[in-house]
Amino acid sequence: MNYLEKRILEDGIVKPGNVLKVDSFLNHQIDPIVMEEVVNEFLEYFGDRKITKVITIEASGIAPAIMLAAKLKVPMLFAKKTEPSTLKNNERYETNVHSYTKNLTSKVIISKEYIEEDDSVLIIDDFLANGQAVMGLVDLVRQAGAEVAGVGICIEKSFQPGHQLIKDSGIDLYSICRIASLENEEVTFLKENN
Amino acid sequence: MNYLEKRILEDGIVKPGNVLKVDSFLNHQIDPIVMEEVVNEFLEYFGDRKITKVITIEASGIAPAIMLAAKLKVPMLFAKKTEPSTLKNNERYETNVHSYTKNLTSKVIISKEYIEEDDSVLIIDDFLANGQAVMGLVDLVRQAGAEVAGVGICIEKSFQPGHQLIKDSGIDLYSICRIASLENEEVTFLKENN
Repeated sequence: MNYLEKRILEDGIVKPGNVLKVDSFLNHQIDPIVMEEVVNEFLEYFGDRKITKVITIEASGIAPAIMLAAKLKVPMLFAKKTEPSTLKNNERYETNVHSYTKNLTSKVIISKEYIEEDDSVLIIDDFLANGQAVMGLVDLVRQAGAEVAGVGICIEKSFQPGHQLIKDSGIDLYSICRIASLENEEVTFLKENN
Repeated sequence: MNYLEKRILEDGIVKPGNVLKVDSFLNHQIDPIVMEEVVNEFLEYFGDRKITKVITIEASGIAPAIMLAAKLKVPMLFAKKTEPSTLKNNERYETNVHSYTKNLTSKVIISKEYIEEDDSVLIIDDFLANGQAVMGLVDLVRQAGAEVAGVGICIEKSFQPGHQLIKDSGIDLYSICRIASLENEEVTFLKENN
């Protein structure tokens, strides 16, 4: 059992509707010790491949993404859910991301300036459930003609379709914690990790 | 001239309407080297005082805040602009933040769980202009009965009212870069730093 799995059992709270509340250490209050452990896990898995940039989506992916980028000594880019006044239509790539939780489709954008064809981009996010946010990031990277080096996730709800969706598109996915079930308000991890 | 000032002169772009575009290294793409230099500046200024928590507001404050929190070995908390499904009305502090750029007032929230009366909270943000976001964070910290240990800003537009607003409320403010003017598409820094 890795550090993040231990913290989920200690401090995570399961709420009705398959919701796992980890806002005491991962996505509202953020414990830097959790970040350091998460970054080490990603480095172990992805550390030997060519990565020229780390990308995530605002807001809760930013903390693990910047700390990993600092270790890899590459820039980090976060996709924005709002349209910055400094970025014109023809200066950006955009894609639509549907949130099943909020039942809402939002436009997500990045500036064309910051991904080039020869980039090899690692996608990082805190949660993977339906995979819509990650597939949106994949779309943005591919619009730029760049390569997806892989996808790194802190917590995956393996009983939802995101994992298969990403694997089916031929992308290497590594999730630090894979949750098999949240039934009966109990967290059960998958036995095999990846 | 500090590192961030040098990068602003090298890579910042002044746009009409006193807009300084620094999204190649600070608030869209983020250069970890800039983050490390910024964190060192904050540590030099705030390092010897009691800080139990770092707080910021999503999204572009998160990167400097988590990297500083990691050095200080304290948790980081980011205020949210949307209402998480896992947080009921009576479980959160909320405040209104007005954005003059977007001409929009938004509710910003934190969970009551993560600030206690005996906390001494350092507020971090990437930009200071009118000071509305920082004063919103000050309000949230004070609703919790906690102390504001100080405010650390990466780039301050010193010709806008935020600096004075914060100083007038008796809070110690340290801005790494203080911009006197963006007129004629040129960045001029204040001679005295703080």
